[in-house]
Amino acid sequence: MIDLIKRFEGSPEVMEISAGGKVFEEGEPAEKMYVILEGEVRLTLHGQPLAMEVGGGIIGEMALIESEPRSASARALTDCRLVAIDKADFLDMIRESPEFAIHIMQVLTRRLRLANEILSAY
Amino acid sequence: MIDLIKRFEGSPEVMEISAGGKVFEEGEPAEKMYVILEGEVRLTLHGQPLAMEVGGGIIGEMALIESEPRSASARALTDCRLVAIDKADFLDMIRESPEFAIHIMQVLTRRLRLANEILSAY
Repeated sequence: MIDLIKRFEGSPEVMEISAGGKVFEEGEPAEKMYVILEGEVRLTLHGQPLAMEVGGGIIGEMALIESEPRSASARALTDCRLVAIDKADFLDMIRESPEFAIHIMQVLTRRLRLANEILSAY
Repeated sequence: MIDLIKRFEGSPEVMEISAGGKVFEEGEPAEKMYVILEGEVRLTLHGQPLAMEVGGGIIGEMALIESEPRSASARALTDCRLVAIDKADFLDMIRESPEFAIHIMQVLTRRLRLANEILSAY
């Protein structure tokens, strides 16, 4: 898989969010996805914990892929540095870099495999 | 999203599986994904129903994306016509067609959103 920290470390779009700060909220319209350079972000849905993402991970890509509102809420658990990528740039990256596209698919697939494992255990 | 039936209808790789027949089994090594031209396929994991896919849908792509064994079992619920796509062709299609890549991401995202909704309701 691609090292997204290396790829985005020098981006001019780095934003800092303090521990406890909101990145996005479920139901909101979505304009950006985020690469986590540093820190821990917690995803929740209807108040239930869903996942954690850390440095090198991505969040918020689902709403861009589907052109749907945010499917979950994201909040910084620790002080975070994130790179924001808007939808046009995200689609450009997929068009220009099959490796980036495959990386996104691998992230989605890993999460889906985990979700299915949990669901099948109920 | 792309009309996969239209795209693959004329493929020389069409295979027929009768109602009740196995497409693949969880844990098996994976070499192909499948586009469903016609019929209904049921996915199960550890014997639990996971999902249904019908004409125009895809199955088996997760194992190719991750280079992992099958994460679920797939069985034809009705007589099915499927197009088998091997890993090299799948990766070529992703490289050559960003629209195909985005389609795969949309399928994965839709499934993940659904799985997360179910998980958060427990």
